[in-house]
Amino acid sequence: MTKYGFLGLGIMGNAMATNLVRAGFEVTVWNRTPAKCTPLIELGAHPGSSPREVVADCDITFAMLSDPAAASEICFGPNGVLSGIGDGRGYVDMSTVDDTTARNIMQAVTERGGRFLEAPVSGTKKPAEDGTLIILAAGDETLYKDSVAAFDKMGKKHMYLGEVGQAARMKLVVNLVMGGMMVALCEGMALGLKGGLNGQQILEVLDAGALANPMFKGKGALLLQKEFHTSFPLKHMQKDLRLAIGLGDALGQPLHGTAATNETFIRARAEGHAEEDFSAVFEVIR
Amino acid sequence: MTKYGFLGLGIMGNAMATNLVRAGFEVTVWNRTPAKCTPLIELGAHPGSSPREVVADCDITFAMLSDPAAASEICFGPNGVLSGIGDGRGYVDMSTVDDTTARNIMQAVTERGGRFLEAPVSGTKKPAEDGTLIILAAGDETLYKDSVAAFDKMGKKHMYLGEVGQAARMKLVVNLVMGGMMVALCEGMALGLKGGLNGQQILEVLDAGALANPMFKGKGALLLQKEFHTSFPLKHMQKDLRLAIGLGDALGQPLHGTAATNETFIRARAEGHAEEDFSAVFEVIR
Amino acid sequence: MTKYGFLGLGIMGNAMATNLVRAGFEVTVWNRTPAKCTPLIELGAHPGSSPREVVADCDITFAMLSDPAAASEICFGPNGVLSGIGDGRGYVDMSTVDDTTARNIMQAVTERGGRFLEAPVSGTKKPAEDGTLIILAAGDETLYKDSVAAFDKMGKKHMYLGEVGQAARMKLVVNLVMGGMMVALCEGMALGLKGGLNGQQILEVLDAGALANPMFKGKGALLLQKEFHTSFPLKHMQKDLRLAIGLGDALGQPLHGTAATNETFIRARAEGHAEEDFSAVFEVIR
Amino acid sequence: MTKYGFLGLGIMGNAMATNLVRAGFEVTVWNRTPAKCTPLIELGAHPGSSPREVVADCDITFAMLSDPAAASEICFGPNGVLSGIGDGRGYVDMSTVDDTTARNIMQAVTERGGRFLEAPVSGTKKPAEDGTLIILAAGDETLYKDSVAAFDKMGKKHMYLGEVGQAARMKLVVNLVMGGMMVALCEGMALGLKGGLNGQQILEVLDAGALANPMFKGKGALLLQKEFHTSFPLKHMQKDLRLAIGLGDALGQPLHGTAATNETFIRARAEGHAEEDFSAVFEVIR
Repeated sequence: MTKYGFLGLGIMGNAMATNLVRAGFEVTVWNRTPAKCTPLIELGAHPGSSPREVVADCDITFAMLSDPAAASEICFGPNGVLSGIGDGRGYVDMSTVDDTTARNIMQAVTERGGRFLEAPVSGTKKPAEDGTLIILAAGDETLYKDSVAAFDKMGKKHMYLGEVGQAARMKLVVNLVMGGMMVALCEGMALGLKGGLNGQQILEVLDAGALANPMFKGKGALLLQKEFHTSFPLKHMQKDLRLAIGLGDALGQPLHGTAATNETFIRARAEGHAEEDFSAVFEVIR
Repeated sequence: MTKYGFLGLGIMGNAMATNLVRAGFEVTVWNRTPAKCTPLIELGAHPGSSPREVVADCDITFAMLSDPAAASEICFGPNGVLSGIGDGRGYVDMSTVDDTTARNIMQAVTERGGRFLEAPVSGTKKPAEDGTLIILAAGDETLYKDSVAAFDKMGKKHMYLGEVGQAARMKLVVNLVMGGMMVALCEGMALGLKGGLNGQQILEVLDAGALANPMFKGKGALLLQKEFHTSFPLKHMQKDLRLAIGLGDALGQPLHGTAATNETFIRARAEGHAEEDFSAVFEVIR
Repeated sequence: MTKYGFLGLGIMGNAMATNLVRAGFEVTVWNRTPAKCTPLIELGAHPGSSPREVVADCDITFAMLSDPAAASEICFGPNGVLSGIGDGRGYVDMSTVDDTTARNIMQAVTERGGRFLEAPVSGTKKPAEDGTLIILAAGDETLYKDSVAAFDKMGKKHMYLGEVGQAARMKLVVNLVMGGMMVALCEGMALGLKGGLNGQQILEVLDAGALANPMFKGKGALLLQKEFHTSFPLKHMQKDLRLAIGLGDALGQPLHGTAATNETFIRARAEGHAEEDFSAVFEVIR
Repeated sequence: MTKYGFLGLGIMGNAMATNLVRAGFEVTVWNRTPAKCTPLIELGAHPGSSPREVVADCDITFAMLSDPAAASEICFGPNGVLSGIGDGRGYVDMSTVDDTTARNIMQAVTERGGRFLEAPVSGTKKPAEDGTLIILAAGDETLYKDSVAAFDKMGKKHMYLGEVGQAARMKLVVNLVMGGMMVALCEGMALGLKGGLNGQQILEVLDAGALANPMFKGKGALLLQKEFHTSFPLKHMQKDLRLAIGLGDALGQPLHGTAATNETFIRARAEGHAEEDFSAVFEVIR
């Protein structure tokens, strides 16, 4: 039976690992703050003492960290992934990171004889819990095939996109679009409310036409109630916008709309909404 | 039997009037370029010689013009709506215009004893043809009720939003969001393509998650093929963005994202895409 | 001896009229709030009872109003300029207005046999007081020549720019550049201060190089002290940015930077800085 | 007699080193492409074989590289600065780099017993040639004092700004303002020209008022002639805007205007103007 590892049990990682454990897979979990492992261990997961140990013990280890720095630290740091990898064992980093970080990790893992797949996801807390994420994979294609059984428990769709870096890019594209759509919704809503329209009617009209989408449906009513309980933290959205703009800069692609979106998210982050849901950007628009 | 008039037979007006005629209603049509009336007359509509005559002959006259200038001209110009209105006859302007224009028309119509409803629509060519528009009405509530039979043939949903001006505002809010979503899609697509991703896969990922919406589905594949046959002309989208920004200015609502969106559409208009579909904004982004 | 009229005694108009009176010219003044005439009358100006009377009594009447609406009202309103103009008398509108307003006034004045010149100024309170404005004139060239003696007392430079509308456009160009420079200064200053730099040193460095300009020198130190006593009201700067963007829209000139500048000024206006100096935009940037 | 080194002889470095040699200082020069050393050697400079040798032989070595990557390479690369530094010898990096790069170099130099000063300059080709740069220094204050004699030959003003990183920040602030001013000039000019104004008159009006500055005077006429011979390459301006926005992001300072400016420069870079003067941004605005 395949042994799986899971590193990083934040909002997303916890939900994803839970789905693996509930599916009856053998999973060893590790988190920097060990307390977060407890619920999973109660469900049947094994406790891991370090990234090194998890990677060395498992056939395939998944990781879900909050940003490129954390993804690098868990890999290159003391008792990190690199110190345990080798012999064809697989390391699947599902964090959203930039090209350079992903390539550095791939190179280091590969040099030690491991196999590497980057597999960032599209979808936030709810899809993570429901096992309906979209998994964007790139890197070692054999590892992709070996991971399909687990991907099927974590997501409703998975795609192989080519060499390492391409999945990260796809993720940035999706989040760029998501950030732009959220700012469009918030600016429209703010304008409408200032103009005396009823917020529910605005959402109803949006939901009746060609713009109708699950995000507006899910977040719209919450916006109006100023409920910003976090499914995708605002600071992570802003990080992805920063990375997307950096990629556009590197590739010579001007992104005027995204740049305005990014500055609005920076304002929201600076004004105390970093840890709230990214829809809290509404607070600095209205 | 209620007699209906219809003024303005562009892409939208033609489709809407056709649905009324096909439903068996008695409809008198008029267009500045008379040739555009021919297909409708062949379907059974009566020809009208001027806005004045149409309004004077019908119980309720609908109008669908391309911009505030045209909407004002047909009303205040020689042989215009005002010269024929009165005695409780209804005038329903379904064009997308600014607050001031709508209020000026309402006031003039009301002073002459007519009833006025503004009723801009959400939806472009296809929904107009299919009778699945969303009709946003504001103004005289009795006229709204009297128009419901006709609205049911032109749209799948209609809403009464209060005093004149509120429907125009709702329309601007919807189109602001639509313009922002389109620019977000185009910037994401342009970035992805420059970064070596497959355009179809980008659309597939977008369509699999919380951002999935009919507009992306409908326009996305066309974008990739650079097919911009017009359902909603780019110059009209840019006009609505201009009006939305003007409303934001008047109400003290900053709209950073929308302002960037608007300038991008101005560039597209200036570079020769004014008459193409608004998705042709992609041509100045990629 | 030439008889001059002066309509509108706000911050700018008062300073300009004062320079005419002090130069020994015969000047009749009028202001909507009559109390503002008192200091000028004490200096030797004659009181006028209405725009109509002033225009009818004087050879050349100057006007300095706060916006297009006020400029139109004083012209087209009851007892307005139009009711007194004729017989080759000159009307010189020094307000900053849009193309359409200027052309409407020109046409009405000309039809009644008057001569019209638009002559907006570059420069705010201090240059108005010092008689060092830059006067941008367009319209009737004979009236331009007849006005030179007065222009020499109000400004240090005057230029004839062609047909009516061109001076207004030049003014918008200058204020577009001014607004952009102010936002650049404020964003640079805000970034520097957040980054631990000394504000005075920032100004010193800016003043030592190729960017050195009187506006930075004059406003920079005040910014740091949060002193925003009004020489050019923020709401007027924002109005000019709105008009410049509208002109760019009409001419097909995208203005991404100016659009961002405008939205920042809208935010400042909405957050209570409308009547303060335009440098108070710093308050919503830092 | 103090022995000076100079590493990096691009447009700026060559002019600066020339001023040192002409002032009679003993200078050893090095450039990655050795041919660029020839004119200086003919003027009396000594040839250096590597950064290592230059640093080891000289009391104070100045470096002027094009970007953070080049500045890091010359320091950390083979036969780099680090391999020659020590014993209190001074290394003065006059390149424009980001905080992190400057701090990394400082730490490495200091650990090896060297003294480090970052000293980026404000001013482009002409001031470099004329010895009228503004030198922004931060780091080891004793080295600042020891460098004053040389700074006096290269610049007209030098300032000590505190710990390493602060000079780089000051430079970014200045260039942020410069980029914003250039875009404001170009948007104003483009709008004016499209509106039928005369470009020379626009420049004359700008030069007559509170916005008058040497940059507009120097670049304005060239803009109109589309002469973009390089004094400050556009790609370097865009790099500084990128760094400024990155600093704003890190510090929580939204920079809406600068973000729009940056995207416009990215467009100019992508459309083939990277190596031209930064004023060539006009080509993608008009």
